[in-house]
Amino acid sequence: MKIGRALRSDGAAVWAALGQDGTTLAYDPATGTSGAELSITRLLPPCRPSKIVCLGLNYRDHAQEMGLAIPDEPILFLKPPSSIIGHGDAIVYPDQSHRVDYEAELAVVMARRCRMVSPDEASGCILGYTCLNDVTARDLQAKDGQWTRAKSFDTFAPVGPWIETAIADPHDLDIRLLVNGEVRQSSNTRHLIFSIPEIVSYIAGIMTLEPGDVIATGTPSGIGPLNRGDVVRVEIQDIGVLENRVV
Amino acid sequence: MKIGRALRSDGAAVWAALGQDGTTLAYDPATGTSGAELSITRLLPPCRPSKIVCLGLNYRDHAQEMGLAIPDEPILFLKPPSSIIGHGDAIVYPDQSHRVDYEAELAVVMARRCRMVSPDEASGCILGYTCLNDVTARDLQAKDGQWTRAKSFDTFAPVGPWIETAIADPHDLDIRLLVNGEVRQSSNTRHLIFSIPEIVSYIAGIMTLEPGDVIATGTPSGIGPLNRGDVVRVEIQDIGVLENRVV
Repeated sequence: MKIGRALRSDGAAVWAALGQDGTTLAYDPATGTSGAELSITRLLPPCRPSKIVCLGLNYRDHAQEMGLAIPDEPILFLKPPSSIIGHGDAIVYPDQSHRVDYEAELAVVMARRCRMVSPDEASGCILGYTCLNDVTARDLQAKDGQWTRAKSFDTFAPVGPWIETAIADPHDLDIRLLVNGEVRQSSNTRHLIFSIPEIVSYIAGIMTLEPGDVIATGTPSGIGPLNRGDVVRVEIQDIGVLENRVV
Repeated sequence: MKIGRALRSDGAAVWAALGQDGTTLAYDPATGTSGAELSITRLLPPCRPSKIVCLGLNYRDHAQEMGLAIPDEPILFLKPPSSIIGHGDAIVYPDQSHRVDYEAELAVVMARRCRMVSPDEASGCILGYTCLNDVTARDLQAKDGQWTRAKSFDTFAPVGPWIETAIADPHDLDIRLLVNGEVRQSSNTRHLIFSIPEIVSYIAGIMTLEPGDVIATGTPSGIGPLNRGDVVRVEIQDIGVLENRVV
């Protein structure tokens, strides 16, 4: 099932599910069931995380293009909740950067509080999967050394459009990124260095994960710049298409 | 006025204010007024931030002890909300680190949503000031390069005990850190490299600050290790004493 959040025509932000015919349905997260068709204005980010935890190098091909060794442990960083936007929202190019990059990523959304779990247990704490674009001010990332400013601008975390709760194997999904219709990244999650259960277990051994928290699992090779006016799409097999315009 | 949050005897988490005779009073954040005496079990962290934004090098003496140049812009990093504990709570030494350090810091708490403000405007967005201990796994900070894991363990952000809303000048406050009663850090906020209005304006030019968000303004010289069993105190003039035991 594809679940998320939407702005209803009356202005209320509500849970929603995607119907088989493409309609938007009411959704009750307590029971996990969908209901009557909703009249919506637009989709919202599909969850409200208390934190967004991201992995640096986690595709072998991306490590190679950056000239960096394969890490023996995941490299973590955080994006603030204030950086989240949904499908169709605008990515705002900050004045203080002159090089803003896209990064297509498979994102994990947590179902429940999760702390100190084994990789096997970690899988049971996952609600589902969605698309994330880890927008990055590459020039500021290099200047600062620490990645926080470069990754934290408002609108730098497009997420969505839906959380897919029925993914049989998250390690065999094609992932692509297109700018203005041209393919710039094309890989498959089988090339992840650390598996999803390993990642969730690793993070939950450091910080308690809360329901709705998002984990971005890293980007494959092919990273590159965005310009104002570009339309950028993250496409992940069986999950969906996340599209945003840069302004 | 000193305001914060407490666990009431009936188990409810409520706003509170410190009475002049040391009693804990009910507090209404909507009106900014205190009321009748409260019966409390313990203090909680004095706010519930959506994010904790921290500065790396922001005291001249600490830059010198680290052998690092004075930065031309603040270096930012984030601690997750899951890392917060209050006055009297235990700092849990993680098994995966062998060098956990204290860092005494003056913390700013935001009163209102704040985005793209000048330094002058920034001052008007501040609710008050509190103490923060930026607990850091120094060995993992060096290993990872990125500081996120080292700064993000559960219990690594002791904050409190109260938010002082009536600080005439936050740039003239003595700040000290003691371990088991011995002074390890002793400085004054006049040695900050970037002033509080500059810091808030800088951050709000990147990410929207929300009410209750916390900004940790950096630590002075004298950083050093903690061991299990230690009692660590952050003392800031006119603000208060934040004490935690390491377990």
